[in-house]
Amino acid sequence: METKAVNYRAAFEAAVETVREEGRYRIFRDIRRKAGAFPRATWFKDDKSEQNITVWCSNDYLGMGQNPCVVEAVKSAVDAAGTGSGGTRNISGTTRYHVQLEAELADLHDKDAALVLTSGYVANEATLGVMSKILPGLVILSDEMNHASMISGIQRARCEKVIFKHNDLADLEAKLKKIPADQPKLIAFESVYSMDADIAPIEQICDLADKYGALTYIDEVHAVGMYGPHGGGVAEERGLMDRIDIIQGTLAKAYGMVGGYIAADSVIIDAVRSTASGFIFTTSIPPSTAAGALRSVKVLKQTPEKREQHQERANELKSRLRAGGYNFIDGDTHIVPLMVGDPVKCQAISDTLINDYGIYAQAINYPTVPRGTERLRFTPSPFHDDIMMDELMSALETVWAEYGLKREKVA
Amino acid sequence: METKAVNYRAAFEAAVETVREEGRYRIFRDIRRKAGAFPRATWFKDDKSEQNITVWCSNDYLGMGQNPCVVEAVKSAVDAAGTGSGGTRNISGTTRYHVQLEAELADLHDKDAALVLTSGYVANEATLGVMSKILPGLVILSDEMNHASMISGIQRARCEKVIFKHNDLADLEAKLKKIPADQPKLIAFESVYSMDADIAPIEQICDLADKYGALTYIDEVHAVGMYGPHGGGVAEERGLMDRIDIIQGTLAKAYGMVGGYIAADSVIIDAVRSTASGFIFTTSIPPSTAAGALRSVKVLKQTPEKREQHQERANELKSRLRAGGYNFIDGDTHIVPLMVGDPVKCQAISDTLINDYGIYAQAINYPTVPRGTERLRFTPSPFHDDIMMDELMSALETVWAEYGLKREKVA
Repeated sequence: METKAVNYRAAFEAAVETVREEGRYRIFRDIRRKAGAFPRATWFKDDKSEQNITVWCSNDYLGMGQNPCVVEAVKSAVDAAGTGSGGTRNISGTTRYHVQLEAELADLHDKDAALVLTSGYVANEATLGVMSKILPGLVILSDEMNHASMISGIQRARCEKVIFKHNDLADLEAKLKKIPADQPKLIAFESVYSMDADIAPIEQICDLADKYGALTYIDEVHAVGMYGPHGGGVAEERGLMDRIDIIQGTLAKAYGMVGGYIAADSVIIDAVRSTASGFIFTTSIPPSTAAGALRSVKVLKQTPEKREQHQERANELKSRLRAGGYNFIDGDTHIVPLMVGDPVKCQAISDTLINDYGIYAQAINYPTVPRGTERLRFTPSPFHDDIMMDELMSALETVWAEYGLKREKVA
Repeated sequence: METKAVNYRAAFEAAVETVREEGRYRIFRDIRRKAGAFPRATWFKDDKSEQNITVWCSNDYLGMGQNPCVVEAVKSAVDAAGTGSGGTRNISGTTRYHVQLEAELADLHDKDAALVLTSGYVANEATLGVMSKILPGLVILSDEMNHASMISGIQRARCEKVIFKHNDLADLEAKLKKIPADQPKLIAFESVYSMDADIAPIEQICDLADKYGALTYIDEVHAVGMYGPHGGGVAEERGLMDRIDIIQGTLAKAYGMVGGYIAADSVIIDAVRSTASGFIFTTSIPPSTAAGALRSVKVLKQTPEKREQHQERANELKSRLRAGGYNFIDGDTHIVPLMVGDPVKCQAISDTLINDYGIYAQAINYPTVPRGTERLRFTPSPFHDDIMMDELMSALETVWAEYGLKREKVA
């Protein structure tokens, strides 16, 4: 790596050092969750010792990763069809499981068709990335808080892009107004914003899309499985699925597996399937992943009580934090961000919580959230019981005092 | 989707129509391979009937997807840790299995460290895409036949790029010469080119890299597991691993799972891990996928006989095609491309083979290969026995005559 003329090593070192100086150097926690006992897990520490912990920051929001039906579906597909798919979708990598999963996802969102990609990230990147090729002259209007994968897709599209203020309808309309009527437009936004726990004004965005003739693209990765009568997401809950042209979701969060997808009119799916590099040139998800996801989607369609338990647990945590005067984002969703506002302190608190209390809440620093808004992000699941809540509140009480973080006096 | 000013539907239809007119509209075969009986599989036909087929185009090159040790490793990890990982690597998605797999891959390539990403595609795209951020002023020199994922990564890097002629050392050197000595350079190439079945002159490329002070990046996705004393790829076979700065590989082909990786000096891994969006913002591969891959890498390290059987089977097919006077690429690898040279005919032959003979060899058309070089791509595995070879040769004999394709007279 070393040469006379260019010091490559120094450049790599400098890149890491920049991250370190900003207090956002990441040490990944090496854990193993225990199927049947989520959110309990084992943490494998650097000193080779092990510690029992409770995971408070998983996106396996409903614990479907340990659901016996899902586990069984995965194992029996492995027995029947082996492990990997062995090919891209076009070259021997389409299986019965993929076909059935896509039909199930299309049905979930009441669309003609669906397309499964290797991740939610790739679903956003590949789909948005190919839109300008299909729609020459396209302008993409993108919420400023959109996820990195959507930003990446929009960059890939290399078309005109217009960023609108987060969930700001007036700003969106002002920007739509400036674009000629005959120019193709696509409004890209999320339903649940995962780091701020807020929800987009979907209906009003659709109204604007109608008024100005724009396509709508919604990222529902933090909502599918968890909102709507069948888990179709916030758009289903609000009766708006038919007003969204492309619904993007994930199998890696509430569904407890891995992979992403889009659901849309069949001609849109056919066009994406036929042109998107990130879909065409990659091995399909394993048959067993598709089988597990299929089962998980089916189960969550039929068990609204899991969604109710989930919301109840989130509300319980929020009411305890409220009573304790903590500075958290008290939103309408299942995500509970507890603000710290400093990257070094945020990491130190996370370290203290896991070391001294066996509570794993990852510090969320830049670039995942803007600098100065560093936080711990709690995701209570139906499996986080009152005893775990007691343990958490007791730990926070001590640690907040230890680090001199403010709490409001509550009457 | 319809508006007065813009006909979106027509644009999507036109995109699909273009693909169709060029004879490269893809209908994915809906199959299910039978674990324990690879390459046998069931094909689920459009008319709802089922047909037994032999898969001749899988990238599960060694049949590790049905290896009992690998199947068992996957199932027991699912039992222990559930299905999905539930998070990005930084937010509860790093598990014991991921850590062990990365250590095993680093060892395989005799590097300090390795990083597992969600696919080989993402590994190339994310790693190459971030290089220019780490190395300001970077020029990437890229073989003209590089895979779509490398091209995508290089586009993402938005730096100067120089395409050199395929495996052409003189052209590469001429282009290196023109770049100032103090400008950072990276030569990106593959070891085995999967569609043409040829191998790069790795040693000479490394010599040029040394001479002109460039980093080297090799894609070994069609080689890892299959070449080298431990399956470390062509670079291991030729004793060149220490001369490559970044080795990229996949878990989705010879290892029979899914996912991709890079192996390199720890400072390179640390820099990529800390800055690449496609790594940071995506759910990690499931614990069971990591567990299966770990077992598969370990098994293939210790069983060179699988690699020998693989080469023997590939050589058997090549010698039969040679004897039959077929126009195929008679290369040094396990991949056997049989040329057709017309997209419509190529698809029709593939259809005839599967319908009439139960032989599944996918037609490979543009954009996977250049127009005019359409082909069937055979990938014989250790499980393709002589009877299957007999069946294939007999079918080809009839079909080649039926479609009027030339064969050379063989003395």
